[in-house]
Amino acid sequence: MPGFVYGGLIASLIDCAGTGSAAGAAYRGAGREPGEGAPFRFVTGLLKVNYLRPTPLGPELEIRCRIEEVKGRKVRVSAVLTAEGEVCATGEVLAVEIPEGFGS
Amino acid sequence: MPGFVYGGLIASLIDCAGTGSAAGAAYRGAGREPGEGAPFRFVTGLLKVNYLRPTPLGPELEIRCRIEEVKGRKVRVSAVLTAEGEVCATGEVLAVEIPEGFGS
Repeated sequence: MPGFVYGGLIASLIDCAGTGSAAGAAYRGAGREPGEGAPFRFVTGLLKVNYLRPTPLGPELEIRCRIEEVKGRKVRVSAVLTAEGEVCATGEVLAVEIPEGFGS
Repeated sequence: MPGFVYGGLIASLIDCAGTGSAAGAAYRGAGREPGEGAPFRFVTGLLKVNYLRPTPLGPELEIRCRIEEVKGRKVRVSAVLTAEGEVCATGEVLAVEIPEGFGS
């Protein structure tokens, strides 16, 4: 819809932010700085997005993620997307760590 | 990941197929052919995607949607994405009909 951000892109942003945050949590859990040693890589097992209001196209979008749970290789992350101070969407990502070497 | 379809794109495909199917259901409910009269337009209220296995990049992807429920302006649609006969992802879309003229 003209003037608003496409919902599939919002899903993509929340997906990326969620798996990235999961990797950040893995580094923290391992007591390492991001980029230090072998990278942690996560894929998405489950993605859920609640579209609360149309997201305006143009203003900077902010996504803040929170680590809700770390359980073995699975990290559950919640996300809030805001534009101009208003919450436009919320999401949940279940990120799953993939074994080193997979898919490379 | 090289060789596999990006999860955000899968979410976008399921989103599009879901809202399109919701519009199809609205036409059917109104006893009209798609394209006949004023268009039904839907936005996504909720999107949920289960990634069951990596989706191979290259083969044709098929998404089949099923109308699960029509409740006023809301249509709940389930979706199954297959590649080479294997189910790679399933999804759910809650599509909400937008009033005529909104956003145009």
